[in-house]
Amino acid sequence: MTGPALSAEIITIGDEVLTGHTVNTNAAKIARRLGEVGISVEWVTTVGDVAETVHEAFRAAWNRAQVIVTTGGLGPTHDDITRRVFCEVFDRRLVRSEPVLENIRELFARRGRTITPRNVDQANVPTGTEVMMNRWGTAPGIYLAEAGRHWFMLPGVPREMEGLLEHEVLPRLLRIIGDRVILRRELHVVGLPESWLMDRIDGIPGLESVASLPDLKGEVTLRITVAAANRAEAQAELERLDAALRERLGRFVYGVDGESLEGVVGKLLLAKGQTIALAESCTGGLVASRLTDVPGSSAYVMLGVVAYSNAAKESVLGVPHDLIVAHGAVSEQVARAMAEGARRLAGVDLALALTGIAGPTGGTSEKPVGLVWIALAHAEGTEVRRFQFGDERILNKQRSAQTALDMVRRHLLRQPGEALDV
Amino acid sequence: MTGPALSAEIITIGDEVLTGHTVNTNAAKIARRLGEVGISVEWVTTVGDVAETVHEAFRAAWNRAQVIVTTGGLGPTHDDITRRVFCEVFDRRLVRSEPVLENIRELFARRGRTITPRNVDQANVPTGTEVMMNRWGTAPGIYLAEAGRHWFMLPGVPREMEGLLEHEVLPRLLRIIGDRVILRRELHVVGLPESWLMDRIDGIPGLESVASLPDLKGEVTLRITVAAANRAEAQAELERLDAALRERLGRFVYGVDGESLEGVVGKLLLAKGQTIALAESCTGGLVASRLTDVPGSSAYVMLGVVAYSNAAKESVLGVPHDLIVAHGAVSEQVARAMAEGARRLAGVDLALALTGIAGPTGGTSEKPVGLVWIALAHAEGTEVRRFQFGDERILNKQRSAQTALDMVRRHLLRQPGEALDV
Repeated sequence: MTGPALSAEIITIGDEVLTGHTVNTNAAKIARRLGEVGISVEWVTTVGDVAETVHEAFRAAWNRAQVIVTTGGLGPTHDDITRRVFCEVFDRRLVRSEPVLENIRELFARRGRTITPRNVDQANVPTGTEVMMNRWGTAPGIYLAEAGRHWFMLPGVPREMEGLLEHEVLPRLLRIIGDRVILRRELHVVGLPESWLMDRIDGIPGLESVASLPDLKGEVTLRITVAAANRAEAQAELERLDAALRERLGRFVYGVDGESLEGVVGKLLLAKGQTIALAESCTGGLVASRLTDVPGSSAYVMLGVVAYSNAAKESVLGVPHDLIVAHGAVSEQVARAMAEGARRLAGVDLALALTGIAGPTGGTSEKPVGLVWIALAHAEGTEVRRFQFGDERILNKQRSAQTALDMVRRHLLRQPGEALDV
Repeated sequence: MTGPALSAEIITIGDEVLTGHTVNTNAAKIARRLGEVGISVEWVTTVGDVAETVHEAFRAAWNRAQVIVTTGGLGPTHDDITRRVFCEVFDRRLVRSEPVLENIRELFARRGRTITPRNVDQANVPTGTEVMMNRWGTAPGIYLAEAGRHWFMLPGVPREMEGLLEHEVLPRLLRIIGDRVILRRELHVVGLPESWLMDRIDGIPGLESVASLPDLKGEVTLRITVAAANRAEAQAELERLDAALRERLGRFVYGVDGESLEGVVGKLLLAKGQTIALAESCTGGLVASRLTDVPGSSAYVMLGVVAYSNAAKESVLGVPHDLIVAHGAVSEQVARAMAEGARRLAGVDLALALTGIAGPTGGTSEKPVGLVWIALAHAEGTEVRRFQFGDERILNKQRSAQTALDMVRRHLLRQPGEALDV
């Protein structure tokens, strides 16, 4: 049996967040943890250290959420107004809590520091609330359960906030919710623009449990989140959606749960006992850099050559001078010769070569900015593909690198006789 | 004379931010930029892709702010509801904007992709609003001036949001605010940890106009923002602070206003008519990739070798086998031989070599993870430096690349007889 669905609001209090000098990582952290236990955060509100706005934010939250988590404004300085406003809104007054004062005294003793009157004031908590003892700092957490609402006030210091969230807030919420199980999985998709991807998966039942998150280099993450009364049910629904998505997307899905494309390529190389070399022109070393971001990549990355000049293409990779003269450095023929040259030079199983016009200048009507040739040389031969990316240099480098890594992945996955683009 | 004080609200729309899977950096960025021109953000509200909540957030913002900036929900997928809700709240309808459609068509043509009906829909904008053309993506920005409010709707993709914020939103707001002159300059500092930097600049009068923004790879940006009644006054104060900071920081300041370290190195190489080659082990091509991020870098980057295996160090760079056996691949001697080998092979003026232990494994007590040797070979000889970075692979790559580029910069800046670390 599932518990009641609860909706939540997070209120972040503090000028430093409001002015953008601190990014609001507390809210993201709380939203993620609440989401994982099935409590959906519907509002995140950030206000400054101004009593009137905090007051307005508190009243609005009370009217629209069942779970309210506030952070900030519980410290010892004069800006810290959360408790005061809470007392106004809920008609309470502050009373001294001896256990909290004792906690503060111990903390100061451990740190060898002298307690100030301001710190003593932190032991004052609103009447009719429950104290959540802060083992990581002086400001206690405060909990109010009333009229079906659960109101939690936490300090803004991330370590203190996180300690109280994990040890005090979440255990209370789990007792309220009951035994609901939430499972999540991410599928990483490469080679499909988001709008094409959405068209492909259109109509799958339960698609509202799937969020799509694109990035700039052309990767889309599909996040599946399912909730059910027990683990078996949740797992079954997760696997059903996973299978339905994979059926539509095939090899466009390259990995799960935070795997990187270079990491997947590395695993495949290790599994097949193969080594790789790179010959990069337009990507300038980006493919090699991504592959070597993976711990242990020295087992399969043997050599990278950034052959930026024609002289380097000739002297290091052995590309024939006449070939460059006849077809230009950005050509199918030169891409092929670069890959085969790198494979020979490094004595590896696979060699990947890229040559293109990254931009912003250097394009012609025949060879526009964004034109990239990618070649993959392997034991059975050399495959060359032509791509037309955009007009931005950095994006062109990123998309070229992404596409090249995906060519290696698809090559390592294919069955005998299969084409690269299955 | 200063214009009227305006209060602002930022509304972030999108499930990915609400659920905490994306941290809300857009809101921080907007709040900082508005703050710098004297517009104080009083509320930041985050809601999901749910029409009712977006509706409620829009109405609340209209009632309490003069400047409203929304981000997100303008994309082509079914989740993107911002324009629809805007039309409900302000009683408008969507009409096709031909200039926007043209912009989208051009963007797709440049990227060599086919336009879908979903993308065509992005050209529909609410009646009675002003379009802010998006040069960075398909979703246009939308501006409404009504009843003393200024309502800006921006896409959620950070690059597009930032482009529209700088080029469309801020110029409009500056016109509204009046003739207060705000000037800004950023100084980029390399090679000094933030706390050392702050100690160095301590006590400079007017330091409250300087914000420090550190990044992970060890760079700090100092942003100077001055406001005055006229341009001459603002300019004088800006120059005074600039000079005071530079006096304390010397060559640690490498550039201004968004210049990249690789861009500055490129300019210096061009100015001196020098060429460069790279021999990278632990950075795996990252230095070459950064240098080739700069448009026109093919004029001075000749060759990069990612010599990940010892065999590649020997066969491509000509590092003597016995040297590797005697001292290990991560040693002063091998770094020197790699740099000199790359300089010879590519026939360049400068060659930079890096060899180190990126981690997470492979360290010993004598050669711990994070140990990196960087060598710079030039006409007068070869200089080698030892660095000890941390225990995280990606950070070690980034800090090594940053430090190596800075060695090249300092070399190109020095006067005859000067040491590298002046």
